[in-house]
Amino acid sequence: MLLDDNRLFPADPGTRTIAKTLYEQVRGLPIISPHGHTQAAWFAKNEPFPDPAKLFVQPDHYVYRMLYSQGVSLDDLEIGVAEMKDPRKVWRIFASHYYLFRGTPTRVWLDFCFQELFGMEERLSEKNADHYYDVIAEKLKTPEFLPRALYDSFHLEVMTTTDSPLDSLDDHKAIRDSGWKSRILPTFRPDSVVDPEFVGFAENVAKLGAQTGEDTTAWGGYLKALRASRARFRALGCTATDHGHPTAQTANLSATEAAELFGRVVAGRADAAQNELFRAQMLTEMARMSLEDGLVMQIHPGSVRNHNRKIFERYGRDMGADIPRATNYVDALRPMLDLFGNEKDLSIILFTLDESTYSRELAPLAGHYPCLKLGPSWWFHDSPEGMMRFHERVTETAGFYNTVGFNDDTRAFLSIPARHDMARRVDCAYLAKLVSDHRLEEAEAVELAHELTYGLAKRAYRL
Amino acid sequence: MLLDDNRLFPADPGTRTIAKTLYEQVRGLPIISPHGHTQAAWFAKNEPFPDPAKLFVQPDHYVYRMLYSQGVSLDDLEIGVAEMKDPRKVWRIFASHYYLFRGTPTRVWLDFCFQELFGMEERLSEKNADHYYDVIAEKLKTPEFLPRALYDSFHLEVMTTTDSPLDSLDDHKAIRDSGWKSRILPTFRPDSVVDPEFVGFAENVAKLGAQTGEDTTAWGGYLKALRASRARFRALGCTATDHGHPTAQTANLSATEAAELFGRVVAGRADAAQNELFRAQMLTEMARMSLEDGLVMQIHPGSVRNHNRKIFERYGRDMGADIPRATNYVDALRPMLDLFGNEKDLSIILFTLDESTYSRELAPLAGHYPCLKLGPSWWFHDSPEGMMRFHERVTETAGFYNTVGFNDDTRAFLSIPARHDMARRVDCAYLAKLVSDHRLEEAEAVELAHELTYGLAKRAYRL
Amino acid sequence: MLLDDNRLFPADPGTRTIAKTLYEQVRGLPIISPHGHTQAAWFAKNEPFPDPAKLFVQPDHYVYRMLYSQGVSLDDLEIGVAEMKDPRKVWRIFASHYYLFRGTPTRVWLDFCFQELFGMEERLSEKNADHYYDVIAEKLKTPEFLPRALYDSFHLEVMTTTDSPLDSLDDHKAIRDSGWKSRILPTFRPDSVVDPEFVGFAENVAKLGAQTGEDTTAWGGYLKALRASRARFRALGCTATDHGHPTAQTANLSATEAAELFGRVVAGRADAAQNELFRAQMLTEMARMSLEDGLVMQIHPGSVRNHNRKIFERYGRDMGADIPRATNYVDALRPMLDLFGNEKDLSIILFTLDESTYSRELAPLAGHYPCLKLGPSWWFHDSPEGMMRFHERVTETAGFYNTVGFNDDTRAFLSIPARHDMARRVDCAYLAKLVSDHRLEEAEAVELAHELTYGLAKRAYRL
Repeated sequence: MLLDDNRLFPADPGTRTIAKTLYEQVRGLPIISPHGHTQAAWFAKNEPFPDPAKLFVQPDHYVYRMLYSQGVSLDDLEIGVAEMKDPRKVWRIFASHYYLFRGTPTRVWLDFCFQELFGMEERLSEKNADHYYDVIAEKLKTPEFLPRALYDSFHLEVMTTTDSPLDSLDDHKAIRDSGWKSRILPTFRPDSVVDPEFVGFAENVAKLGAQTGEDTTAWGGYLKALRASRARFRALGCTATDHGHPTAQTANLSATEAAELFGRVVAGRADAAQNELFRAQMLTEMARMSLEDGLVMQIHPGSVRNHNRKIFERYGRDMGADIPRATNYVDALRPMLDLFGNEKDLSIILFTLDESTYSRELAPLAGHYPCLKLGPSWWFHDSPEGMMRFHERVTETAGFYNTVGFNDDTRAFLSIPARHDMARRVDCAYLAKLVSDHRLEEAEAVELAHELTYGLAKRAYRL
Repeated sequence: MLLDDNRLFPADPGTRTIAKTLYEQVRGLPIISPHGHTQAAWFAKNEPFPDPAKLFVQPDHYVYRMLYSQGVSLDDLEIGVAEMKDPRKVWRIFASHYYLFRGTPTRVWLDFCFQELFGMEERLSEKNADHYYDVIAEKLKTPEFLPRALYDSFHLEVMTTTDSPLDSLDDHKAIRDSGWKSRILPTFRPDSVVDPEFVGFAENVAKLGAQTGEDTTAWGGYLKALRASRARFRALGCTATDHGHPTAQTANLSATEAAELFGRVVAGRADAAQNELFRAQMLTEMARMSLEDGLVMQIHPGSVRNHNRKIFERYGRDMGADIPRATNYVDALRPMLDLFGNEKDLSIILFTLDESTYSRELAPLAGHYPCLKLGPSWWFHDSPEGMMRFHERVTETAGFYNTVGFNDDTRAFLSIPARHDMARRVDCAYLAKLVSDHRLEEAEAVELAHELTYGLAKRAYRL
Repeated sequence: MLLDDNRLFPADPGTRTIAKTLYEQVRGLPIISPHGHTQAAWFAKNEPFPDPAKLFVQPDHYVYRMLYSQGVSLDDLEIGVAEMKDPRKVWRIFASHYYLFRGTPTRVWLDFCFQELFGMEERLSEKNADHYYDVIAEKLKTPEFLPRALYDSFHLEVMTTTDSPLDSLDDHKAIRDSGWKSRILPTFRPDSVVDPEFVGFAENVAKLGAQTGEDTTAWGGYLKALRASRARFRALGCTATDHGHPTAQTANLSATEAAELFGRVVAGRADAAQNELFRAQMLTEMARMSLEDGLVMQIHPGSVRNHNRKIFERYGRDMGADIPRATNYVDALRPMLDLFGNEKDLSIILFTLDESTYSRELAPLAGHYPCLKLGPSWWFHDSPEGMMRFHERVTETAGFYNTVGFNDDTRAFLSIPARHDMARRVDCAYLAKLVSDHRLEEAEAVELAHELTYGLAKRAYRL
């Protein structure tokens, strides 16, 4: 077997028993997936997933960044290739390097998929690469492995995608109109029309105008267009926005200043500081709109995107070369908090890639401001040690109820059960520790395990 | 019962036994409380504490910041109200939200008070709110719950308050003159007369002049007035100063430069950088005076005070809206260390709200400079996980003997035994870990438990 | 006994058994010491080590910085004195303060030496100071304690020193020519000729010219001289360079700009920013040369050297007063990574003194760029807690195979077995935790224990 039933539970036998008991209470709960990057098209079309390499290697930058770091070329992995020429060869390369993932969460997620979905019992290696390939390829053709069947068997109660305001959302409409009983909702991610440094920003703003019938050459029309776009998302069940800025900077410009700055950034005449100021002002505008329309706001700052220049020039955005940077919240959020910090009806979920801010800035902020909550440990930190550090550094100041449960945040649809299972296990391991040293009663821990798995996410995202 | 006898001890049975054995050696030691925020007036007047809400909710920003973060209004809690209108209603709100404190140190402190002082056995909730209220209100009227009786029963050996140079210290004199056998000492906290951004700074400086008979319109007279003020504190047993600056910045200006800058800040003509420079210079001046008069110097930097603008405008200072910021020590302290760093007779205790500096800057600094020691984990970090992280990140470089034991740092007098008990338990848990994996002998751990509980604080604060 | 056989293993009995089993597999492996600061002269001359004080106190800044922080004067310890006047008195001071090292790695290293090399059974104290002194002094005169005999008995397979380009390397040649079977290799550390703020920089550059016969008054000749110097080191088996800059900043200047800047720094006309830019450019030049000649590049940034002004003025460089500072990698390395980041044949090992960068910057960088690997926890962090934090924060993102095993990094030759033993124990403790909670199979852990002890270092340093 690839997986042990006691995996990720504490070593001490007494504490392990508590963790296991807690886990049994939440193991079978439906999955709430309020933040992720699956494609609505998969469920609209419901076509079989392609071959194993296209499914597990090509789209998963956790996987290919590790192989790349150890000297495997992206060309050999056919990364960025629309029609893979030799997926079996790519799979063999992956299999022969699978040992690199020892000690990483990727290995735990993949082993879960391999065992639970494909019935594998021996760990992937060069030796059994073809066997894996054949079994997986075969199963992917069966009805049980169609996207909608998997959605149902994963026991998903609700799942969200992440979408540009310029997206037609036709796939979401198609799902809704298909009569298939499910809940797949869009999330409003406006980076492409609010970040002057996004590729094609000015054209995107023009498209937004065309799409909404508003005059996006002027600040007022631009804001109206964004409001209209949000309304269009809400009509399809969207409950949240998401903002992936380089920093958490917010601003509070006068309407005149903002209009002037907007003219400058759209014309491409802004320098780096002005671009940053515009993004900062747009976070504040998004908060203002959230207060109006009730969309929960997610801020995902702190990543230097596309850090590897050659990879970016050759392969484009989002190729596993994003590197976190130290992130300030205490000063950056202040302009927005001055305006809206005390609004009980506004909900802003903060994420970070800079763990030094957990106890220093984020927990104190969320433990005070009514509008703030903390997103779970994110990206490089959605791992057993990463999740444990999040709990240990955040809970003592912010408590459990200023957090929002787990996000799987994945492009890899098949990994969703694996990721939620890992989170449930680590949450229970943490709670078991608190019970074991008598900081919590076991009955409270049962309630909190349920909250961390289900209740907090559902309420925080208004799902 | 609300509390288990084994709380906060390690889960592993062998290690737990060691922790428990160590704890039994220090459980009964007298309390040294060298840094805190209780009111001398309570002990001067020795009047009964008021009702439960006024005692546990209104003054404790750990409590009401959490309630506020979850949407409870400060008005409903009657925060900032001199005469509470409906303390029982406030108590009921608190009780019905008590579950929010799960996983926080506040819950452990409060449960300790409720059980050990008031004999409660069932956890506070909406259901038993009135019972709690009645029992506590009743007991507060009894002689055993008068401030002096509690001081005695808490087994306090010495306790310090925190006082402005402008304070008459009449309450301290009254205690001394009352014949009551106790040791309650003032601490010299000059922020109001050395920080140009403190509300009323210029008037405060003028008052200092009037109070001391020195000409505080000039730099020389200002320094003399501060010396006189320190002497007045020392005459009442004061052994330490305390400095709550936004940063740890120090400076080394010439007398001419300092005099010129003083003129500017007192006249209100200084900009933010000049205000910061003045605070920096004043840390150096305070160190110079400490070298003369032997007062131990405490530096508590790194908090952005009154971060919530609306709360500050409505309720004033110190309403639970202080948020830490990244803090630099290695460059900031250098001007002062260049002057006094090698003085064996000077003792400066450094605190931080930025845990990333524990191992990076603070332990290396304290492990080298004779004048530096490290204060315990502070504020958001005086919690089980916070104290453990402090030990784990500081001890390997600074050792135990460059630390100063525990501070309760509280306004909540009734929580003092609870806080010291938590510290003793976590200290013993840490020491037990070192014994268990053979980094210490058990006999050494016994000695160190005693030091962490009693000896280090007493010597470091010259008490 | 000073040492327990189970020291540094996890407390939980099941996990301890796993750790112990793993440790038994690697306990006896030869030592690979790819980065350190021993003196080749010791092995070239093979003379007895001097007395205990000169061996254990005078050269070890871990030891005397702790004593100094607690008020022992460096004069009393005869620090910086060529011929010690009263080594026994120094030893007694050390012995009577030995309790200060409780909880520090220094104590574990020293106890290992005292027991394993000198047969001591009672912990060092004021009481047994003379006995220790006599036994150690006696043994140091025996043939078994000559440097070469110790090298052999330590089971060292290879050990490197750290050397200036201006060093004649005569001692290395003498070792090679002596016929003694050993492998002691130089490491190329060019700080003295690439850092404009190094004492004597301009003279050093001139000497480099004289030594290599190149015209180091011009940029082209200077680069040629460095190439020649590297070749000279390689001829004696050198496989790596080492760079101790204040920051990790790199640059990518044009040849013209670089030549102009070189002229300015050599002439002493550069300001602090230009000095920093020159160091930055030199890291890029060193990477370029490494790509040509195959030397592995080590970057050791982030220490404020000689922080204590009075100590520096009185005793000179490297007297235990170096303090780490927050260090940025994500922006600093980008100019060099833009050029060489994707080169598989280039190997750059990154170190840090800022643990907040482990998970935020270093693991994501090393988990992506083919040229980057992570050095082990360094200096203040080469301790049980420090090594564990390194593993826990790095492995989940970078895996094991982007790390390079252990460095002892010591001037204290006698402590080498102690340091490697500590690393092997902590590595096995970490692996045992992963096995215990089923993140690894035990067979994999055995393989990884071997890699962490031997394989990774040997391959990463091309030894």
